[in-house]
Amino acid sequence: MSHPNQSQVLLVDCADRPGLVHGITGVLLRAGANIISNHEFVDVEQDHFYMRTAFEGAGDEAAIREGVQASLPAGATVILRRGSPQRLVVLASREHHCLADLLVRHAYAELGAEIVAIVSNHAHLTPLAAKFGIPFHCVPSEGLTQAAHEAAVARVLAPLHPDYLVLAKYMRLLSPDFVASWPRRIVNIHHSFLPAFAGARPYKQAFDRGVKVIGATAHFVTEQIDDGPIIVQQVIPVDHSHTAHDLAQAGRDVERVVLARALKLVLENRVFISGNRTIIFD
Amino acid sequence: MSHPNQSQVLLVDCADRPGLVHGITGVLLRAGANIISNHEFVDVEQDHFYMRTAFEGAGDEAAIREGVQASLPAGATVILRRGSPQRLVVLASREHHCLADLLVRHAYAELGAEIVAIVSNHAHLTPLAAKFGIPFHCVPSEGLTQAAHEAAVARVLAPLHPDYLVLAKYMRLLSPDFVASWPRRIVNIHHSFLPAFAGARPYKQAFDRGVKVIGATAHFVTEQIDDGPIIVQQVIPVDHSHTAHDLAQAGRDVERVVLARALKLVLENRVFISGNRTIIFD
Amino acid sequence: MSHPNQSQVLLVDCADRPGLVHGITGVLLRAGANIISNHEFVDVEQDHFYMRTAFEGAGDEAAIREGVQASLPAGATVILRRGSPQRLVVLASREHHCLADLLVRHAYAELGAEIVAIVSNHAHLTPLAAKFGIPFHCVPSEGLTQAAHEAAVARVLAPLHPDYLVLAKYMRLLSPDFVASWPRRIVNIHHSFLPAFAGARPYKQAFDRGVKVIGATAHFVTEQIDDGPIIVQQVIPVDHSHTAHDLAQAGRDVERVVLARALKLVLENRVFISGNRTIIFD
Amino acid sequence: MSHPNQSQVLLVDCADRPGLVHGITGVLLRAGANIISNHEFVDVEQDHFYMRTAFEGAGDEAAIREGVQASLPAGATVILRRGSPQRLVVLASREHHCLADLLVRHAYAELGAEIVAIVSNHAHLTPLAAKFGIPFHCVPSEGLTQAAHEAAVARVLAPLHPDYLVLAKYMRLLSPDFVASWPRRIVNIHHSFLPAFAGARPYKQAFDRGVKVIGATAHFVTEQIDDGPIIVQQVIPVDHSHTAHDLAQAGRDVERVVLARALKLVLENRVFISGNRTIIFD
Repeated sequence: MSHPNQSQVLLVDCADRPGLVHGITGVLLRAGANIISNHEFVDVEQDHFYMRTAFEGAGDEAAIREGVQASLPAGATVILRRGSPQRLVVLASREHHCLADLLVRHAYAELGAEIVAIVSNHAHLTPLAAKFGIPFHCVPSEGLTQAAHEAAVARVLAPLHPDYLVLAKYMRLLSPDFVASWPRRIVNIHHSFLPAFAGARPYKQAFDRGVKVIGATAHFVTEQIDDGPIIVQQVIPVDHSHTAHDLAQAGRDVERVVLARALKLVLENRVFISGNRTIIFD
Repeated sequence: MSHPNQSQVLLVDCADRPGLVHGITGVLLRAGANIISNHEFVDVEQDHFYMRTAFEGAGDEAAIREGVQASLPAGATVILRRGSPQRLVVLASREHHCLADLLVRHAYAELGAEIVAIVSNHAHLTPLAAKFGIPFHCVPSEGLTQAAHEAAVARVLAPLHPDYLVLAKYMRLLSPDFVASWPRRIVNIHHSFLPAFAGARPYKQAFDRGVKVIGATAHFVTEQIDDGPIIVQQVIPVDHSHTAHDLAQAGRDVERVVLARALKLVLENRVFISGNRTIIFD
Repeated sequence: MSHPNQSQVLLVDCADRPGLVHGITGVLLRAGANIISNHEFVDVEQDHFYMRTAFEGAGDEAAIREGVQASLPAGATVILRRGSPQRLVVLASREHHCLADLLVRHAYAELGAEIVAIVSNHAHLTPLAAKFGIPFHCVPSEGLTQAAHEAAVARVLAPLHPDYLVLAKYMRLLSPDFVASWPRRIVNIHHSFLPAFAGARPYKQAFDRGVKVIGATAHFVTEQIDDGPIIVQQVIPVDHSHTAHDLAQAGRDVERVVLARALKLVLENRVFISGNRTIIFD
Repeated sequence: MSHPNQSQVLLVDCADRPGLVHGITGVLLRAGANIISNHEFVDVEQDHFYMRTAFEGAGDEAAIREGVQASLPAGATVILRRGSPQRLVVLASREHHCLADLLVRHAYAELGAEIVAIVSNHAHLTPLAAKFGIPFHCVPSEGLTQAAHEAAVARVLAPLHPDYLVLAKYMRLLSPDFVASWPRRIVNIHHSFLPAFAGARPYKQAFDRGVKVIGATAHFVTEQIDDGPIIVQQVIPVDHSHTAHDLAQAGRDVERVVLARALKLVLENRVFISGNRTIIFD
């Protein structure tokens, strides 16, 4: 759970071997750190170790980073993060519900991040952005190739220096090149419980299949559409009386909650990625 | 589920006896009504019959109302409603999340009702109301008796002619007199799965009790605090790592969804009240 | 919900037109039937009407059936069922949990049906069947073609006259011919939230995909594997710490509950099939 | 999640101070232990530290226990458990569903414990126990004071040396004296989402209150009835069509799943008790 006053988070992943926890906690102890929470996980199949430690009060960041690195096997990843708010750019199209949800959370400082801008291929959500005083960049795609449109989007993004892009019902496919330039830094909300109904019009697909639950999936975007590491999934029950339109409407509440939950986990540095899977310490 | 284009809804409740459905549908058939959906329920313990029929195309409303009434036992309640939007006044205090959720749905015409004003005992939410252009009436309670404060609120409400009052985290107790002047027309969101943790500070109570689920309850307000007919309840899992503060934060997403769901049911005329219970046709 | 003492259930489906409910309830009224519950649904896209009526006290079954049929458009389906228990044969392989669950419910008369026999391609579950005194037919498949094995199974089934076959983790694919000989009368439990992870080893697939929920689906079996009309679906949350083996273990509780729930709905005559979808009146 | 082949589990709880994890993992490292999983939690309000470590391969148990104890503040609790199956006695009355569920899991070695006997105040479940070959002790309460009946039960229990008593719908209140003689060793299933509907006939209470969810709670039994530390809670949705009888029937599936889940956590040594709350590492 959230510890809003946490000052630093140490993230370690490396090949597993005996003594890792002992070694890492030793470095922190000698640095005067007061550990607030500790989570470890060993992926036995991959023989890989993951650890997240939140702590306060330690002095020399570089010394901690070096000390921890020295205590670990070669090839270990060591990340040390201060709780400073991260910068988000939200990409949306015409649907308002996920964007509005993020804007409300942002307006009341519940997001733990700064929404520095909204980018959309439509002008439709301009008034919503204006209500909350967030810069809105309309980058229309009509008449452009995908490459040209993405280049235009990239030109908008570059000066904004976002830590993460959030696809809040952004209805454009992203090219592998675009995705590759934001590795592990694009979070998408897909309106089905993946891998069911990947691709277009999942609620129509769900209606046609006659499912009794619908859901939403927040995931990192990788080159493979709808196939990136899953962060959060949730479902709700439905029945025969739901038309495809009803399903879409009912699904909105799940979509916004799932996206917000996933962002919270990502922004609190609780999510490791291992291949196509996530390891989440919450 | 919603049928947004439904033109009229007929609501009947009366003592049960054979032939009720046949009689009511006969009146509608002769009036040229095209029935879209029909729900009936017989409360066997109370020997009482409930029916909701949505239909289109019928001509003479008065004739339908009289014909249906004539087909029923004495003392039957017959209500016929056009789908015209109903008028809501939202009462709130300092917490923004339920109010913001309703305002977003309202702004995008998803609420099926008109929010004509917001009334609050604090000025805190003024900027939120302003973003969405909804009149905000601050009626402070400091230095006033409950009776004097409620009289001031009532003076604000009177010219607004609301169909329903929505308590969106309104943190003032309402007197029996106030409640009696809005019978079955006040909907409240309580931040626990009632009857657990009725009264004040439910998340603190939940933390102290060490529960593994928390939830929210939307209900009609009756003279008995936290004891009115329940419309919607939902829970989410929690664990030992949640502080009382974490529980409150996690609970907000449930609260807003539960309140919105309950309002939708009420505004679509899907909720009957029977004593302290609701009968809901969705 | 269940009304265990219901005496008769009338099931109607036909092309929609005005006056259907009025006409059907008129026949029942004149026959002296006391209606206990009524459910209707109009599939607007298909312009098709579905109705389920439970009633008591009516005298002449043939007259009701004929009267109802005469009140309906040509091609209407009219089914009238007494609440006599239906006959089930359960097919299983090696996993015990769904079968054991059904046997316990059966032993305590909670199933609303008679389990007349168990058929398995393995001897493994013989002791379980014996505990509950249910005849167990082992029909090994080794060395047989699918056709030969299914013929052997069919020979066991024929004298048992089952109303439904229940596949309680029966791990053999059924041929289109076999399925065609039990139309709408085979209920299967699939251990994933279909259409995700159709086919073999769904828990392994779920692990590899890194999903955050797993689930189970009870459905009617059609010629298309894992593609028949869905009756009940349910999911549970999982996380990175679950191995594929853990997922399978955790999934068992969902599987048995989902199968039992689906059977209850089917046996109480609450399920209509419309193409690849179900309409369920519960 | 379960690691069925785990050989030893170390459970520590003590006043919090810096260096605890480092110290404990140091002892295990020097003893040659291979840590499989590690969970820690600091209750900040109580300034108390909890840790559960599963490990393999360490040699000298006494040395580990002493080394760990020496590394901790005074008053620390250190428990070291081998994965040997624990001994359960199940107490039941007339309802079969929870007992049957445990017996099936036991029969297929899924329980991780040995059911050494069943004790009941009725003879009703004798045949069920017999099916599974578990000794059944009927201790009728008619004509006996509570003290006399409990003394009779205690005489049955004494030679069985159970680690835990499991109240699987045992409908007798236990005296504070009886409870005190099995401290933290009695697990009960209560058929409501406590603290709602504590006491007798929770489904009747739930019906009268008109709730939209029902649930079950597994908890440790303390002197205060229905007020002990909660282990697992779960709910399911219900509606107006459920009679009190329907609620009870629908609740059974939740009850058995919740009790089984709680037992699994307790038997895998994943549950700490802190006052009236539990800390669960799963």
